[in-house]
Amino acid sequence: MDELKKRILSDGRVLNDHVLKVDSFLNHQIDVALLDGIGKAFYDHFRDYGISKILTVEASGIAVACSTARYFHVPVVFARKTPSVTSVDDQYLADVYSFTKKRTFTIMVSKRFLTPKDTVLVVDDFLASGQVLLGLTKIVHQAQASLAGAGIVIEKVFQGGKKAVKDGEIDVYSLARIASLKNKVVVFQ
Amino acid sequence: MDELKKRILSDGRVLNDHVLKVDSFLNHQIDVALLDGIGKAFYDHFRDYGISKILTVEASGIAVACSTARYFHVPVVFARKTPSVTSVDDQYLADVYSFTKKRTFTIMVSKRFLTPKDTVLVVDDFLASGQVLLGLTKIVHQAQASLAGAGIVIEKVFQGGKKAVKDGEIDVYSLARIASLKNKVVVFQ
Repeated sequence: MDELKKRILSDGRVLNDHVLKVDSFLNHQIDVALLDGIGKAFYDHFRDYGISKILTVEASGIAVACSTARYFHVPVVFARKTPSVTSVDDQYLADVYSFTKKRTFTIMVSKRFLTPKDTVLVVDDFLASGQVLLGLTKIVHQAQASLAGAGIVIEKVFQGGKKAVKDGEIDVYSLARIASLKNKVVVFQ
Repeated sequence: MDELKKRILSDGRVLNDHVLKVDSFLNHQIDVALLDGIGKAFYDHFRDYGISKILTVEASGIAVACSTARYFHVPVVFARKTPSVTSVDDQYLADVYSFTKKRTFTIMVSKRFLTPKDTVLVVDDFLASGQVLLGLTKIVHQAQASLAGAGIVIEKVFQGGKKAVKDGEIDVYSLARIASLKNKVVVFQ
């Protein structure tokens, strides 16, 4: 997606070989017009899959999921990282290891909102090591729902996430694929 | 907003005198068409205020903020509850006491994304005790930005949030105002 790549080059900040900050337009401040284009790109790719739910994880995935769901005319479900204080329902749970935070956390989705009848598109802002995407796919499998694929805004290819989720078994569609951030230069694949 | 009130009555679950669960359409599963109507309602009320930023807090506020920002054609900024592991910028900070979790947490916004030139509309899914809204207004004041008002999806009037934020000094516009949840019955004001 050209508009996204241009924006990464103009407004992204490469902190080191592993970290690209896009907090001015994607995950702290959000450019909703750009998000609209991202949602449309995912729709164009996955429109014939019979998607019934868009699944993501709080917090950064929510904006991406909502802009995507508007095109599909289906609900968003976002996995929580902390239990709701008013939680009363059974949950699907998956453990996710964060390499950046060096700890495991649990993501959870109420069983009320994913069922075997659902065909799910998972979306997220980043694909890095693939641990979050793996966790979300585990939740889809627990629900015995169908997994149509994953829409990723920015894939850091060099961190191997696509391999971690068994490349080929899931249709991972990334709008910007970054081969390297070395020497503070963004190299797209 | 009639559509919202109908939805609260049909799909909301009153757990006790204080807790209304709306996780089937607002803050776990999200009905993006309903959110679109919510965004339009906020736009209709605040359209002449010269809004330049929509400010909310993760996670439940993000969907509301994005659907609102689409009408205003301005960016969303969401306050974080946990520091970004890659944080490199100065932050505006405000402490927020949670009555439900019985602890204080800090919300934070990068100084890059709110400036004295901004006119800010704060939005959130709920107004209860008003502590979160107070925290967000403190951040707007720290940035020396103008505060146009607050758009709230569901106000639990009996929890006094509007008084906590000094009723009258801020234009708090709530789409569904709930006077009572006693006996598991939703009574609108």
